[in-house]
Amino acid sequence: MEANDKIVLVGAGNMATALAVALAGAGNAPLAVWSRTSESAQMLADRVGAEWCCDIDALPQADIVIISIVDSALRQVTAQVARKYPDAIILHTAGSIPMSALHESGANRYGVLYPMQTVNKTNVVPLNDVTVFIEGSDNDVTAHVERLARTISNKVVYATSEQRCSLHVAAVFACNFSNAVYNMAAEILEKNGLPFESMLPLIDEAARKMHTLSPREAQTGPAKRGDSNVMNAHKAMLDDELSAIYSQLSDYIKKRNRL
Amino acid sequence: MEANDKIVLVGAGNMATALAVALAGAGNAPLAVWSRTSESAQMLADRVGAEWCCDIDALPQADIVIISIVDSALRQVTAQVARKYPDAIILHTAGSIPMSALHESGANRYGVLYPMQTVNKTNVVPLNDVTVFIEGSDNDVTAHVERLARTISNKVVYATSEQRCSLHVAAVFACNFSNAVYNMAAEILEKNGLPFESMLPLIDEAARKMHTLSPREAQTGPAKRGDSNVMNAHKAMLDDELSAIYSQLSDYIKKRNRL
Repeated sequence: MEANDKIVLVGAGNMATALAVALAGAGNAPLAVWSRTSESAQMLADRVGAEWCCDIDALPQADIVIISIVDSALRQVTAQVARKYPDAIILHTAGSIPMSALHESGANRYGVLYPMQTVNKTNVVPLNDVTVFIEGSDNDVTAHVERLARTISNKVVYATSEQRCSLHVAAVFACNFSNAVYNMAAEILEKNGLPFESMLPLIDEAARKMHTLSPREAQTGPAKRGDSNVMNAHKAMLDDELSAIYSQLSDYIKKRNRL
Repeated sequence: MEANDKIVLVGAGNMATALAVALAGAGNAPLAVWSRTSESAQMLADRVGAEWCCDIDALPQADIVIISIVDSALRQVTAQVARKYPDAIILHTAGSIPMSALHESGANRYGVLYPMQTVNKTNVVPLNDVTVFIEGSDNDVTAHVERLARTISNKVVYATSEQRCSLHVAAVFACNFSNAVYNMAAEILEKNGLPFESMLPLIDEAARKMHTLSPREAQTGPAKRGDSNVMNAHKAMLDDELSAIYSQLSDYIKKRNRL
């Protein structure tokens, strides 16, 4: 990243917060934060020592504008940003929106900064070991975005908009859906007066194994063993919704075991 | 556990191995290991300094016999063990088999030892912080099993056979099904030439959050946000099998978000 790159952050949600904190940690905090609501904007700005506002036109001069907002508002906000910053590099952080959306909304130099991590503003985790996927409108911009990314992470990988979509959907499975199955376990235990805490060593170990084994190698359980008796007994204990999910995921496991 | 409790292990698979190692670590390794195959029996026996055999009748005298074998063989093997050890406490370690199965197979004093952890003989993890659920044929036996359990874990909880079934099915969701969704992510990434390694920080973080948040509080992603555009785009990228799973799990998340 150029020593003088001035960064402005449009958005103050979970990803915006994680990026702002990571950039601040790298010695180049955003100069200003924009959000639709003054509360959010101020909260993040105070956190990293930036200015804040709720009006794009009130933002200061910048070399790089990072737009990290809900997908549904991206194009409209990008159009405003592109008008204000005709020469800046405009980046978005969305998993499933192509880079071209920025161009279609008026950006001249643009790209994507996509840290592959689940983030929460109330508990920001460092991004140093998180793979940051990047893309840029031309080689020059791409190189610039890569340098920016390298200030916050030691794993920077180029990915096209199409690959990024695959990453995003893979992340939904690995992260959102694993949380969903944790929730199913929690509901079953709660119904039976048992502690969810007892699941934590399993949850931790299942995740830890991914550092040394492929998911295929690591698979265990009745579906893997083809234990129909246990599976039927389990389904009998579940309501229709969870029973259907149990069947579907067990079928998936069984198929993979035959390959 | 009584200082003089002699323990014998029937079985040499994943759970048997984890228990043998934990007991050895607590200063009371099993005296002998039985398995159907000599290879398995000898491997585990050598690991903890025990004798080994493939014939129940060749096992030495014992106060406690822990049977940790495939569910389908439990009743038959228990019958042999019960004949050889009329006075010992006979325990099984199965999630979905009621304690009464031991009694039906001839055991007089019996119970269950159920460590809530996913275990693998090639990578044995300590059981100290794992919740061990126990049950016994009468108060005296239960107290004895509890003392045994406390030598290997600092979290010992009483659970009926019915509750243990719930624990087992909850564990299938939390552990086997989370691994399954990791596998789905791996397949999507492999198809697109992307590194599964990039998922590790997400997988770790999703698991870590369970130590401080409920799964309900921790849920993120397009289904939680009600983002139909992204969900439809995702489903369009998936084959029929994964698309159906994506829909089902997203519906689950959406329902929970409305409650």
